Amino acid sequence: MELLNGITIARGEKPADHILRNAQIVNVLTAEIYTTDIIISGSRIAALGEGYEGHVVTDLKERYVCPGFIDAHVHIESAMVPPREFARAVVPHGVTTVITDPHEIANVLGLEGIRFMLQDAKHGPLSMYVNASSCVPATDMETAGAQLEFYDIAPLLHEPWVIGLAEVMNYPAVVMGDERVLEKIRTFRGRVIDGHCPGLTGKQLNAYAAAGVMSDHESTQLEEAREKLRLGMTLFIREASNARNLRPLLPLVTTSNERRICLCTDDRQPADLLAEGTIDHMVRVAIAEGIEPVTAIRMATLNPAEYFRLHDRGAIAPGRRADLVVFSDLADLRPEEVYRGGKLVARMETLLEYPSLEQPTKTRSTVNINWGTLDFSIPASGPRVRVIGVVPDQLVTNHLVEYANIQGSHAIADPHRDLLKIAVIERHLATGNVGLGFVKGIGLKRGAIASTIAHDHHNLVVIGANDLSMMTAARRVSDSLGGQAVAENDQILAHLSLPIAGLMSHRPIEQVRDDMQALISAAHDLGSRLHDPFMAMSFLALEVIPSLKLTDIGLVDVERFEVVPLFVN
Amino acid sequence: MELLNGITIARGEKPADHILRNAQIVNVLTAEIYTTDIIISGSRIAALGEGYEGHVVTDLKERYVCPGFIDAHVHIESAMVPPREFARAVVPHGVTTVITDPHEIANVLGLEGIRFMLQDAKHGPLSMYVNASSCVPATDMETAGAQLEFYDIAPLLHEPWVIGLAEVMNYPAVVMGDERVLEKIRTFRGRVIDGHCPGLTGKQLNAYAAAGVMSDHESTQLEEAREKLRLGMTLFIREASNARNLRPLLPLVTTSNERRICLCTDDRQPADLLAEGTIDHMVRVAIAEGIEPVTAIRMATLNPAEYFRLHDRGAIAPGRRADLVVFSDLADLRPEEVYRGGKLVARMETLLEYPSLEQPTKTRSTVNINWGTLDFSIPASGPRVRVIGVVPDQLVTNHLVEYANIQGSHAIADPHRDLLKIAVIERHLATGNVGLGFVKGIGLKRGAIASTIAHDHHNLVVIGANDLSMMTAARRVSDSLGGQAVAENDQILAHLSLPIAGLMSHRPIEQVRDDMQALISAAHDLGSRLHDPFMAMSFLALEVIPSLKLTDIGLVDVERFEVVPLFVN
Repeated sequence: MELLNGITIARGEKPADHILRNAQIVNVLTAEIYTTDIIISGSRIAALGEGYEGHVVTDLKERYVCPGFIDAHVHIESAMVPPREFARAVVPHGVTTVITDPHEIANVLGLEGIRFMLQDAKHGPLSMYVNASSCVPATDMETAGAQLEFYDIAPLLHEPWVIGLAEVMNYPAVVMGDERVLEKIRTFRGRVIDGHCPGLTGKQLNAYAAAGVMSDHESTQLEEAREKLRLGMTLFIREASNARNLRPLLPLVTTSNERRICLCTDDRQPADLLAEGTIDHMVRVAIAEGIEPVTAIRMATLNPAEYFRLHDRGAIAPGRRADLVVFSDLADLRPEEVYRGGKLVARMETLLEYPSLEQPTKTRSTVNINWGTLDFSIPASGPRVRVIGVVPDQLVTNHLVEYANIQGSHAIADPHRDLLKIAVIERHLATGNVGLGFVKGIGLKRGAIASTIAHDHHNLVVIGANDLSMMTAARRVSDSLGGQAVAENDQILAHLSLPIAGLMSHRPIEQVRDDMQALISAAHDLGSRLHDPFMAMSFLALEVIPSLKLTDIGLVDVERFEVVPLFVN
Repeated sequence: MELLNGITIARGEKPADHILRNAQIVNVLTAEIYTTDIIISGSRIAALGEGYEGHVVTDLKERYVCPGFIDAHVHIESAMVPPREFARAVVPHGVTTVITDPHEIANVLGLEGIRFMLQDAKHGPLSMYVNASSCVPATDMETAGAQLEFYDIAPLLHEPWVIGLAEVMNYPAVVMGDERVLEKIRTFRGRVIDGHCPGLTGKQLNAYAAAGVMSDHESTQLEEAREKLRLGMTLFIREASNARNLRPLLPLVTTSNERRICLCTDDRQPADLLAEGTIDHMVRVAIAEGIEPVTAIRMATLNPAEYFRLHDRGAIAPGRRADLVVFSDLADLRPEEVYRGGKLVARMETLLEYPSLEQPTKTRSTVNINWGTLDFSIPASGPRVRVIGVVPDQLVTNHLVEYANIQGSHAIADPHRDLLKIAVIERHLATGNVGLGFVKGIGLKRGAIASTIAHDHHNLVVIGANDLSMMTAARRVSDSLGGQAVAENDQILAHLSLPIAGLMSHRPIEQVRDDMQALISAAHDLGSRLHDPFMAMSFLALEVIPSLKLTDIGLVDVERFEVVPLFVN
């Protein structure tokens, strides 16, 4: 009946549910901007044009209307709140659809985590589509909370909210034709298959594309991005909290190639989401940098809609969803009203009341540590140790070798040399695994910091100047079912609880932002001069990014791709 | 294993099956033209770039290569040969994929006809995709050979070679919200739904678009096409034998809207296919008229591939099908070699040997006439008659009223006034139905012409100066299981046999063209001055195009949309 209703309204024989009169529409289909009326029937646009009657009529007085923005690739967990609260942060910025890879929670809770995300997004003001996580866990040199093979993710093919396969990060395996990853690609053939291949070029890149991988969001260089476009990959330009690729890549965009380019945020922390915004921020920057407004808006609407085959959105046209953004200034696009499915859902940066039909979504506790065997002490078995060398604002580390600080029979931290102890405590299966080592560059003079956010396995990582501080911080994080903490000896100095998989909070995103700021301040008080020592710490356990990393299994020499001993002669 | 093979070849660790070296590729993804090597693995492109080895290497010496052309909408039956022979005509012109609406044969044979087309296309050198015919029969004021409701075509959803729903020609029914047609649209929701709405504008057009119809190929005017584009319909620019819309619509094309525009041929007769070509001809004309070559080629490759969601083709890139056209001159694009699925299938306008894996496809005989009751005589029941007034080169007719030529108690033809008798003989079910009337504008001074091609029901239509000639022509057509004939009294002057559904020949397309020319010459000898009296006759029985038409049920006043009596006072 909805179809018939829309036709009848379009024919003009029945009043529309809502009319947006005198809208200057950004028609991304024809790349034109002109004034007309938008006629809405239920959740859809019924017609464009004048001479219609409506039950509700809003005169936009020549304000602009563009389609709702689509974030082509985002890990919602990076906002440290679940989808419903994430929606509160992004919908007022004009984002009405996101394609998310629930990769972080999948590493903790597997399919149960993915279902949690789908469940939590239900009935909310944001259309959340999921791509099935393709690389859980990252390698065999870690203990994650789940392992997803092709037969595990195949059932997701039949979920209406699942589009395809999420970024195939294990690009070396694809290039080498590894059957375990090819099985996943075969399973999702005919669907969208997203990629992730930083710096890949030449024959390797050809092999990756030949495997059927269709996009990439890791380009940082113009030539890199151009090569990927030429080989048929759709380019997602990313502006994440820790990877800002928009301005460097904008010179690539022309009116002749922009149809193959989309915008995405990948990972945005609460502070950035709240201060800058999200896709709207990228559109503003693109326009300010000289990109045609319609082109910038296309990259945030029509292009991702077409790439992800969401043919019901991405443009303002009869039959499409009435996902709309109203704004006044094309040169500085600030969403003033946001419609989603014909309903006004946000006004002046604030989400309007959106009655939830569901109880808060629940997950089981995910911090399961065998405290009985846990011991941070490191018996000395040589004069020198491998040390993880932090490089400020980068995910790569240096592989250092330094003389250990040996007291009695044990190697301990040496804050004077900025040689801190690091531990990665397995926290999913209570195996008792703990990886121990040393790290340089965090800068704590005393105390410790701990977190259950540690890519990609999200074990409990703790760095400190002494074992007592480390234990205090780790215990506090564990007691709150996951989170982040700063401790000095037996005192907690700051704390953030993240009980959802140890990754996300149940509290408002503004409070999460404030708590994070307090954590960073406390770490600074203890001597760290890093912009965000928690961010730095969260990548020290990721054994697929060079050079030296620590997992619960031990130190990983990423170049050699193997576990190596801590002590060297 | 094919996937793994392609990856290994792309990585450079195994020789390619075929390499096209020094190809100036038209990269429709980035709108660039540059020289590289195309590396082929089986039916797919494995890689682009230099430094590869191959079992077979062809040096293209800087000749151009673009993707194989895609005809977005074609009725193969108009070529009067079945798909396999049609392929012989179009593949050498660079067309490697067509989307066909088997509407003509569906009106004769229903689903059996559609399956015949699919069957005949199998293993041939052309990828033929079908859209399910949506309007069989055109109205209830005719007797067609089949009637397809939504539940009849629903099973086609599961055919791998069926994409969506073919042109919903009954646009008045869509606009009025007729449930019989909406059921078909609902059945194919989520798939491609093609349209057909000549001249539709304003609220009516909005209603048509709101119903979910996604394309139109009937635009003849710039403003008409612009409005459809703005309302979200993909525009197919058509260059058919009897509707030449390319040059008039080219001024609409810009680099900013071309992604929403495709090329199609709709209906091309053998003579045009052989003399001009097909989509290649449209690309040549577009470039000659000043369209950017890459834009012209995109409209024939990437754009239809994206619209029809054929994501495995339409561009030259790793992982896509190696459907390729090699040519020397961008300003006058003449396909010299055509590759389909990595295999060279045509060279210098000739299809290379393509071993058929199937026996000639068979259909049952479709001409079933109740000769026992057939009588062309028209008892006079008034002084004046309605007369179908032919308008040269148009499908619309005038609704004339003239004094009848009454001899005794019967109205007969009056060739001196160009008042000829026309009969439409039901030929599917042997109902004995015959519609009788008069027509002006065909111009025969004597004799008769007959044909089983009569849109859309394809009953046997015959026009003549006397009943004997009419019967001779009709009998000859029937005796050959369908076709076209010219007769004078008891003599056959020319004849073309079309035993496949009364629409298509088993013979080579060149012979069909020659026979058609002989038929037209014979009709000219009998006095007709129409460019093609058979083409004109084939639309006189189509009761959805104004003003007066004749079906086997009787005369139809199309404006009043009802059957009307022949005689008036």
